[in-house]
Amino acid sequence: MPESAHTTDLPKANGLEGVVAAQTELSHVFGEEGKLVYRGYDIHKLAGKASFEEVAHLLWIGRLPNQRELDDFNQKLGKNRTLPAGVIDALRPLPSDALPLDALRTGVSMLGALEPDRFTFEPDLDQAISVAARFPAILAAFSRLREGKEPVQGRAELNTAQNYLYQMHGEAPEEKHWKPLESYLILLADHGLNASTFTARVIASTTSDLVSAITGAIGALKGPLHGGAPALVLDMLTEIGSADNVEPWITNALDSGERLMGFGHRVYKAEDPRAEILRGMAETASTPEFFALSQKTEDFALAELARRKPDNKLYTNVEFYSAAVLSAVGLPGDMFTPTFAVSRSVGWSAHVLEQASNNRLIRPASEFVGATDRKFAPIEER
Amino acid sequence: MPESAHTTDLPKANGLEGVVAAQTELSHVFGEEGKLVYRGYDIHKLAGKASFEEVAHLLWIGRLPNQRELDDFNQKLGKNRTLPAGVIDALRPLPSDALPLDALRTGVSMLGALEPDRFTFEPDLDQAISVAARFPAILAAFSRLREGKEPVQGRAELNTAQNYLYQMHGEAPEEKHWKPLESYLILLADHGLNASTFTARVIASTTSDLVSAITGAIGALKGPLHGGAPALVLDMLTEIGSADNVEPWITNALDSGERLMGFGHRVYKAEDPRAEILRGMAETASTPEFFALSQKTEDFALAELARRKPDNKLYTNVEFYSAAVLSAVGLPGDMFTPTFAVSRSVGWSAHVLEQASNNRLIRPASEFVGATDRKFAPIEER
Repeated sequence: MPESAHTTDLPKANGLEGVVAAQTELSHVFGEEGKLVYRGYDIHKLAGKASFEEVAHLLWIGRLPNQRELDDFNQKLGKNRTLPAGVIDALRPLPSDALPLDALRTGVSMLGALEPDRFTFEPDLDQAISVAARFPAILAAFSRLREGKEPVQGRAELNTAQNYLYQMHGEAPEEKHWKPLESYLILLADHGLNASTFTARVIASTTSDLVSAITGAIGALKGPLHGGAPALVLDMLTEIGSADNVEPWITNALDSGERLMGFGHRVYKAEDPRAEILRGMAETASTPEFFALSQKTEDFALAELARRKPDNKLYTNVEFYSAAVLSAVGLPGDMFTPTFAVSRSVGWSAHVLEQASNNRLIRPASEFVGATDRKFAPIEER
Repeated sequence: MPESAHTTDLPKANGLEGVVAAQTELSHVFGEEGKLVYRGYDIHKLAGKASFEEVAHLLWIGRLPNQRELDDFNQKLGKNRTLPAGVIDALRPLPSDALPLDALRTGVSMLGALEPDRFTFEPDLDQAISVAARFPAILAAFSRLREGKEPVQGRAELNTAQNYLYQMHGEAPEEKHWKPLESYLILLADHGLNASTFTARVIASTTSDLVSAITGAIGALKGPLHGGAPALVLDMLTEIGSADNVEPWITNALDSGERLMGFGHRVYKAEDPRAEILRGMAETASTPEFFALSQKTEDFALAELARRKPDNKLYTNVEFYSAAVLSAVGLPGDMFTPTFAVSRSVGWSAHVLEQASNNRLIRPASEFVGATDRKFAPIEER
């Protein structure tokens, strides 16, 4: 097998669309039905009923924990909610306009560098727990440092969603804020072989370590073609301003050929089940005015999109109500995709563990389309 | 197209072997002929004849530079041989047994975080230059810090190979050391769509930034199935000790079923052209005793391997003489794979630029093999 194929006799798959690159038991997207399953559970059965920690246990270990298992598991997570000083110090010199995902990528990479005995090769559950538990801590520390405040260490008795808001804002969050955030974290935790998850599996397939795989995945999520631009939904809603302004604003935007943010998804041919659940969460967390604005924007946009392009049915996607929920719980727009990473860190490490348990190097071919026989001329003759 | 395929009607490619995932003009491995081509030039025409900087210009810009272009290019590289204080400070808290590739991954990630205006999205040549030029500086700084010494900044008038050794050891290197290192850097700079290069392209395909892609690639190179274990070749040669001991040592190792380090490659069905050139470099750089030891080990091992398994012809691979060259120029064993990264950083960024110039999201499917309809039980019933 040549490293790259000069001839054209190899199967080609632009973007690898439709090529199966891995088997997984972790999650599955039923795009036609608008259904998302984690380890056999429809996410409707999990969101609002199980905690984020139970879902992490499910994805990593394969089953929902009983109370004793959950207590053990929470204790392990709790021990990892503080950051090593080396990570905090690495974040200190970052400028206030540094991108939160760049800070996260650097902080996670630093975790591995600081503790070589713990993180060298052979991914295991302990590493998954300690890395995922540090995601909110790194983002919260960065967020406080850029505001000129000292980072706040986590509290072992708070859960992931509570700790994230506590470490970010320095005070224990209200239930109407951390509960919707927890549902968000559950809903985004895994989603088949998306580009960042695939990145993590490719890195793990070289028998590299978990931190390397997760660091790579953060970089892939940073790309707008994957991590999206959920902050733009918030910008749009802010610009619309009030429910009264929805109809003229959207009519004008569509008349001018602008793209509305938060509608359409490559995979789902029905409503994204995550959007549906997040709508309910947004209602809990938002002010009545903001929820009315969101809902009227959604209703009118869907009606107008259907009227203008009846053959190309669009649905509200996960970004639309993610923006409403994350904004309502007190996160700024530039923390939306990083908060997606907090959630997805669980899926990434579950995929790394799965890849490591039955590994084969993921190594496709390239087609060479360049020159093959150029004559070398020394520099004075060029 | 579903995100993952629950049915089995999609093409499957375990490890994606033989599936074309990208087109490239950058390099091609002719495995049957033992030939490696960069942008149309057989590497035999480049190693020892062009400088590493000319080869970087070739891979990034598409042609070998004339003298004026090379002067400009070297000036740009020279400006980037110093490290921002934030990168050096991030390396300070690392323990002395931190892995050099973890330090490199963190330092490169930090470069992007420190300068958001420069490194946000849209990969360009300037970013490629400034990141690749910092690879040797980061490794040298880490290497000195772990020995309790202060980092040495680069000197604009020295080339990449010279600066690397200068920044590591604090004194200008002799030609018999930097010249073989330069050839090594040229030979390892690109090699088709290997796992780390593929990682970089997957990350770039989300329209993420160059630093994110390169950070992911470092993580993939860290895996022994890709980056190998060139230090083990040195360990083997050290254990053999002298040319006199080659025959009994190798006979004994093969009789005991041990694997010899530095032989065999998945892709080449002839001698790896890089090994052939590095053999000559090892002769220049090594002591006569060490070269005699290396060469006798190679000759006897190949003869014995052929005698014992005549149907499974093995050749010396690039790791064997890489170890001899890198050791001779004064690098410790744990800097061998990181030095591979110094070289490959040029190929990685060339692939990122190529991917960005004609992008499509790389996003394969997964086959779901898990449960689909589990019944949720609340925690008290588990």
